Amino acid sequence: MQIETTHRVNYSEVDQMGVVYHANYLVWLDVARCELLRQAGMSYKELEAERGFFLAVSEVRLRYKRAARYDDLLRVRCWVREVGSRKVAFGYAVEHAERNELLATAVVELMSLSREFTPARLPAEVSQMLPVIPDPVRVD
Amino acid sequence: MQIETTHRVNYSEVDQMGVVYHANYLVWLDVARCELLRQAGMSYKELEAERGFFLAVSEVRLRYKRAARYDDLLRVRCWVREVGSRKVAFGYAVEHAERNELLATAVVELMSLSREFTPARLPAEVSQMLPVIPDPVRVD
Amino acid sequence: MQIETTHRVNYSEVDQMGVVYHANYLVWLDVARCELLRQAGMSYKELEAERGFFLAVSEVRLRYKRAARYDDLLRVRCWVREVGSRKVAFGYAVEHAERNELLATAVVELMSLSREFTPARLPAEVSQMLPVIPDPVRVD
Amino acid sequence: MQIETTHRVNYSEVDQMGVVYHANYLVWLDVARCELLRQAGMSYKELEAERGFFLAVSEVRLRYKRAARYDDLLRVRCWVREVGSRKVAFGYAVEHAERNELLATAVVELMSLSREFTPARLPAEVSQMLPVIPDPVRVD
Repeated sequence: MQIETTHRVNYSEVDQMGVVYHANYLVWLDVARCELLRQAGMSYKELEAERGFFLAVSEVRLRYKRAARYDDLLRVRCWVREVGSRKVAFGYAVEHAERNELLATAVVELMSLSREFTPARLPAEVSQMLPVIPDPVRVD
Repeated sequence: MQIETTHRVNYSEVDQMGVVYHANYLVWLDVARCELLRQAGMSYKELEAERGFFLAVSEVRLRYKRAARYDDLLRVRCWVREVGSRKVAFGYAVEHAERNELLATAVVELMSLSREFTPARLPAEVSQMLPVIPDPVRVD
Repeated sequence: MQIETTHRVNYSEVDQMGVVYHANYLVWLDVARCELLRQAGMSYKELEAERGFFLAVSEVRLRYKRAARYDDLLRVRCWVREVGSRKVAFGYAVEHAERNELLATAVVELMSLSREFTPARLPAEVSQMLPVIPDPVRVD
Repeated sequence: MQIETTHRVNYSEVDQMGVVYHANYLVWLDVARCELLRQAGMSYKELEAERGFFLAVSEVRLRYKRAARYDDLLRVRCWVREVGSRKVAFGYAVEHAERNELLATAVVELMSLSREFTPARLPAEVSQMLPVIPDPVRVD
């Protein structure tokens, strides 16, 4: 399973070089990750509110290959790379939606936390809903 | 009482016109407001954590007069304009610290909320610590 | 003419009160304003790149009425309030898309600038494409 | 050579878990990197404006170890890890300034670009001013 979201670059995201400031990619990855959870059958909002289960980012690796510019329409592809007892790793490819160019790749690892923000095992129902696939794009 | 904070414009704040993106000013105003509270004898963190007392922004008016640019050193002046039973209004002047130019003026009104996020009276100890002064700079 | 955009609140936009941090609304308004220009027949990107014509925010008034929360789906309505020789004012209503509640109203004024960032008259072709309508929602 | 900057966490940076949203660290790293360049004798602003020389982020690796919270005072340590003919890698440690705890480590690689945004050699005067040191903190 691999999901896709789209995002049109807005003016707040672009810096004085005329390209997207690098920190903004992390927000798009977050949006894509939540969409993957939603399509897998659970919204992250419900995980937090109803199960008292949190996912906190523990590691980020991002490679920027080509710049994105104001008003560009982007596609973010997201998939599950690894599911451990206490963590999940997602892979990402950010592409220019019209030119089909790869702009960036990323890996984001999240730790599973309890309501008290201590490390906790991923509930089995959750890890079963997260189907690991081989990387469709090289991200390492 | 009027307080001052300084801020050096960073790369994330500047857009492709080469000037600070307008939404960023609101963060600087927030930082200055918290510094005023701190200098008045209470940190906003303690107000939230220990008294269960919250201030939520209910209104913002901002006038942009001159642009701020990357690496500019800015001065934000902040004062209390009005204290009501359930709200406080702060006035602001954002200046270029080296050229002493006025870049923007602002008014931000906040409502007092209880721990349940319902409107609540400003505690007397708090409103007494917030000395209203006449606007040192025209902000309306 | 009045346009609508939608936005799902993401995790980066929410603060520790569990509600959207107030500065983020300005980005949504910007996105809606650019969409209005696009639907009126000109993209802001082209205005900048091809005509050397810039719109810089000169004034912002925002009233926050109800909080928006993580994962809420919002609707931003945007219209033209005034067109002058050198400035344009847009009106906005931010609504909860599912509950149809009004969350915030806003007015944003922009100045027309030349490629040298000096005040410039709005080109007639541009001002003709911006149809002023009476405020559908009270924003003052 | 290793430089230090400090940053007090502001309200806009904290999410509904009550901890700093992970993307904000990248802005602090940027500020620290610019401060290192300034202390090494060249401001990044001048590099761009006077020499037409740009540094674009090409890779980011961040490990989050402990959370930062609202109003925490942080220390960001920054040093040069590698200087190549066309790229520079910086290492970072983000620490809680009062508790001296390590909160995060990072590596950010930047590519050298010409005014036309094509890859360009790092000018010798620049690379000579960037003294590589062994990592004072493990960042890999």
